[in-house]
Amino acid sequence: MHQVRSLSTRVKARVGVIGLGQMGGRMADNLRKHGHKLVVCDPVPANVQKQVDQGGAVAAATPAEVAEQCDTIVTMLPSTAIVESVYLGDSGVHEALRDEHLLLDSSTIDPIFTKKLSTELHARGATFVDAPVSGGVAGAQNGTLTFMVGGEPEEFERVKPLLKAMGKNLVYCGRSATGQVAKLCNNLAAAIQLTSVAEATNLGVALGIDPKVLASVLNSSTSRCWSSVANHPYPGVMPSVPASDGYEGGIAVQLMRKDLGLASSCAMQAEVSVPLTNSVLQLFNMMVNQGNGHKDFAYILPFLRGGNSNP
Amino acid sequence: MHQVRSLSTRVKARVGVIGLGQMGGRMADNLRKHGHKLVVCDPVPANVQKQVDQGGAVAAATPAEVAEQCDTIVTMLPSTAIVESVYLGDSGVHEALRDEHLLLDSSTIDPIFTKKLSTELHARGATFVDAPVSGGVAGAQNGTLTFMVGGEPEEFERVKPLLKAMGKNLVYCGRSATGQVAKLCNNLAAAIQLTSVAEATNLGVALGIDPKVLASVLNSSTSRCWSSVANHPYPGVMPSVPASDGYEGGIAVQLMRKDLGLASSCAMQAEVSVPLTNSVLQLFNMMVNQGNGHKDFAYILPFLRGGNSNP
Amino acid sequence: MHQVRSLSTRVKARVGVIGLGQMGGRMADNLRKHGHKLVVCDPVPANVQKQVDQGGAVAAATPAEVAEQCDTIVTMLPSTAIVESVYLGDSGVHEALRDEHLLLDSSTIDPIFTKKLSTELHARGATFVDAPVSGGVAGAQNGTLTFMVGGEPEEFERVKPLLKAMGKNLVYCGRSATGQVAKLCNNLAAAIQLTSVAEATNLGVALGIDPKVLASVLNSSTSRCWSSVANHPYPGVMPSVPASDGYEGGIAVQLMRKDLGLASSCAMQAEVSVPLTNSVLQLFNMMVNQGNGHKDFAYILPFLRGGNSNP
Amino acid sequence: MHQVRSLSTRVKARVGVIGLGQMGGRMADNLRKHGHKLVVCDPVPANVQKQVDQGGAVAAATPAEVAEQCDTIVTMLPSTAIVESVYLGDSGVHEALRDEHLLLDSSTIDPIFTKKLSTELHARGATFVDAPVSGGVAGAQNGTLTFMVGGEPEEFERVKPLLKAMGKNLVYCGRSATGQVAKLCNNLAAAIQLTSVAEATNLGVALGIDPKVLASVLNSSTSRCWSSVANHPYPGVMPSVPASDGYEGGIAVQLMRKDLGLASSCAMQAEVSVPLTNSVLQLFNMMVNQGNGHKDFAYILPFLRGGNSNP
Repeated sequence: MHQVRSLSTRVKARVGVIGLGQMGGRMADNLRKHGHKLVVCDPVPANVQKQVDQGGAVAAATPAEVAEQCDTIVTMLPSTAIVESVYLGDSGVHEALRDEHLLLDSSTIDPIFTKKLSTELHARGATFVDAPVSGGVAGAQNGTLTFMVGGEPEEFERVKPLLKAMGKNLVYCGRSATGQVAKLCNNLAAAIQLTSVAEATNLGVALGIDPKVLASVLNSSTSRCWSSVANHPYPGVMPSVPASDGYEGGIAVQLMRKDLGLASSCAMQAEVSVPLTNSVLQLFNMMVNQGNGHKDFAYILPFLRGGNSNP
Repeated sequence: MHQVRSLSTRVKARVGVIGLGQMGGRMADNLRKHGHKLVVCDPVPANVQKQVDQGGAVAAATPAEVAEQCDTIVTMLPSTAIVESVYLGDSGVHEALRDEHLLLDSSTIDPIFTKKLSTELHARGATFVDAPVSGGVAGAQNGTLTFMVGGEPEEFERVKPLLKAMGKNLVYCGRSATGQVAKLCNNLAAAIQLTSVAEATNLGVALGIDPKVLASVLNSSTSRCWSSVANHPYPGVMPSVPASDGYEGGIAVQLMRKDLGLASSCAMQAEVSVPLTNSVLQLFNMMVNQGNGHKDFAYILPFLRGGNSNP
Repeated sequence: MHQVRSLSTRVKARVGVIGLGQMGGRMADNLRKHGHKLVVCDPVPANVQKQVDQGGAVAAATPAEVAEQCDTIVTMLPSTAIVESVYLGDSGVHEALRDEHLLLDSSTIDPIFTKKLSTELHARGATFVDAPVSGGVAGAQNGTLTFMVGGEPEEFERVKPLLKAMGKNLVYCGRSATGQVAKLCNNLAAAIQLTSVAEATNLGVALGIDPKVLASVLNSSTSRCWSSVANHPYPGVMPSVPASDGYEGGIAVQLMRKDLGLASSCAMQAEVSVPLTNSVLQLFNMMVNQGNGHKDFAYILPFLRGGNSNP
Repeated sequence: MHQVRSLSTRVKARVGVIGLGQMGGRMADNLRKHGHKLVVCDPVPANVQKQVDQGGAVAAATPAEVAEQCDTIVTMLPSTAIVESVYLGDSGVHEALRDEHLLLDSSTIDPIFTKKLSTELHARGATFVDAPVSGGVAGAQNGTLTFMVGGEPEEFERVKPLLKAMGKNLVYCGRSATGQVAKLCNNLAAAIQLTSVAEATNLGVALGIDPKVLASVLNSSTSRCWSSVANHPYPGVMPSVPASDGYEGGIAVQLMRKDLGLASSCAMQAEVSVPLTNSVLQLFNMMVNQGNGHKDFAYILPFLRGGNSNP
């Protein structure tokens, strides 16, 4: 049914990009800016058309077609199930897999699945790294993403040039799936830490301390953290953070909930106790269910405060 | 550098110190080193005798006697109930209270009680500040404590010289009780943040990432915090931290439990929701009940890991 | 200043009632119906006037005056602090305390304070029992309250007739304060259990089971509990429960929060780990802060479900 | 009483049993006692041999072979992944699937997967019901299991005779997967409720009430539940329960953890907030990691109490 056809050198030099959403589309843009010709694939026709129109990309109907036409493929997809389908499903990458393939998954997904996927792809001779990102849409747009990379050291060397076209910091995390692991571990800790600042600040303000004074105390002591220093959740304590702008922008509650869910799920499979991760996951789930999933995750502060008024 | 002005009698120039435990005894030593003569009071005769023998301190039988003999008094006591008794109980400070009194409580206690105590002492004309500390026994010994001070601005000015004899950093936190509030808020956030690093690291290690690599990822990203930078809870990630020395030294689980309990109790009275604070309080209580209250609070990592082996 | 005057037998036969709120007022009514003449005291003049007008009660200005005029006194008060003030404060019961006094506190308060109060009153020769109630306003009105009684066995015998005038079930729980202990332990377990039914039902319905079918499964299996049998939190599963009537009536969220707070506070003092109690306390606090404190505690189901629509 | 109708050949009249562990083996025994000839399959040769030797069962090498030989198949397997493999994997049931097949899965697994499996099997013309059990090994042995059944009403009618050979109570829960849903919802509520009794009892005992007295109060009030009535977790309160026998027997902590994990995982996928379920899951995970996974789940009481001594 499917056939790996003989492809000319010209076509093979193209880079495949599967997944052209908020992140993937901007990453594709940066690949083009660095001189890469692209073959693209996405279920939303407008996303594909934009790459074709603006950048001369070739549209592919399926991941298998992308794999036929490109030796190098970047995937940026929203869930573990979709990554599985794109790589291993009908008309998936695996149907056209070759030894030459350099595959790079920047999705944030279940590291336990990533490990399985990596084992399978490696067994068939391909190069595969997991390289989830931090830095959000702005990082994708500006090419300043941080990539956390899991794979063999020589695989990391191979993907470096491509990653540099899309990001600024490349962090090698170890063998397969450790990029995913690093991302999840960082995000669960970040969500808990921001909640710690929210609880401390809500309590402190209720007991009569000025939130800016409290912030300066925290920042010079044993509870200094990124959230207290760079994303303080109380309105007005810092300029230019989501909390001072109606909790718009930043890292969405629903994205954090997704990562907390992945972390919780992995912890369950690995039989690791993560009580605060699970508690925070519940709080984030409640925020989404109350209709605030699009807000910055600093919204945990007014959520815990309750009521309808801003803090 | 510092001068106690306008004292009418020789005896009154002495500084009173009530509470000569691990912290108070060392703070008294530093006051002596800075030239203060002391009047001391403590329920443990040996603590008193040591000050008398080594420093020529005068022993007082009761807090009231201290108040009779000294215009300036420092208290360093283990609980809200004992502070209440020392200031307001039978033979307490209040029985000899004068307008000239400059009272300074460095205990870590319930800020809601501190507020009441302050109101009562102020109503009777005395000066009173709350000035809980961070820095632990080492800070008390070396005179490098941080004092978080609550009181009127002019009260803060008055106590500065005395505090400088015992510590290095003086943080003015606002009106009465805000010193206590700042201390509790910092500590609840610190306990939660350290637990976040413990959960992230336990999970990461179980999923195959090297704990040092993970630490470097956290430290360069949105979950960087004091605990990941300066008190990493995984053995061997950092030298010279309790986790690398059998969890000895540092900030004891039982002290942290006490502060978390105070924070939880205040939150209840102030009707503030602090879900993670309460969760962490439970975990710390469980550690104490399992006989590990004296360990550094980084012990939360092996506690959550379970089993009997070191991580 | 104050004097215990010589009182005639007639006056001494009156029963004192201190606290004439929603519960205390109705309990006083039932005492009158059983032939008791009353001396009453309450900070709200209208509450006092009602007892004077309808039942010929004598108004007393202070708890001490009640104690002068009555050998038997029932107190029904809203907080530990107020009980302390009524018994031990200025113009409190203690100022007129006699060996003949039979004192009975039906307030729900901190059992650790009750123990201290009991010790003090017993030391002065009085009889004192704690006898908190369950059954709510309806039980108070209909004289069908359950009393959980702590005190010596002979004290329990002495108060039985009085309790029977106000309630139906008398449960002897043991020595002083065990009535309070029983009440708190029951209520924390009830709040957790109802939340368990809410979580099970929210999850089950989301996964496609009919809530009535699920209720029947729970009720015939290992999760059968009072909340699933008699106060199901899902609208329409049972007739005549708050959940089927807009969550009106029943046991208010804010009352349950108070009892959970007392339980949490005692657990902290007793160093007992109660993770679910503390978690539920936080959830109930969040419901109060969102303006739903007056709803039946079954409101935890729609609260956890989130959103604005009814489930 | 029960009749397998319209079977064309001798061999097809045999019932297939896949999974002969603690539960499945005993269920097979009961099918034999009710006159069924069996075809059996299990990865452990001894389990198979026992059925062959004692009951004249035919051994099959794969699920597909079972499906070839039997129209009726019962599966009793330990995890979602194994159920997926047995039905849909290589040499799985699906390879020999026929319209005549009556398939019955008594495993406790992810209901979201069960729903997918059911859709696929129904699409291919087979009858399939989910029928997880309660009653444990003793129920399996004595044929007194409760089956919670999900499927079309006519499917429920078809499987009734077979279920009656293995159990006592058949509960029809609704369409596909609702049997699984009912089981998980019941178990999460049961685990939370037992923990509520443990917290109440640990707190009550610490505050001085007799555990038997407290149990009688709970059982006559709003916190009466199966765990307080039939599986009290405090040693000596009830005879013949695991708590009074070193926490041996009963429902193992690790089984409960598995079901709580499934519930938590489903809740995440369905975006339902289940804070207590997640908290209890963590506590049960900690008990397993401390080496107490085999104990009855009432072990949560001494676990929360801490220390090494019995309560």
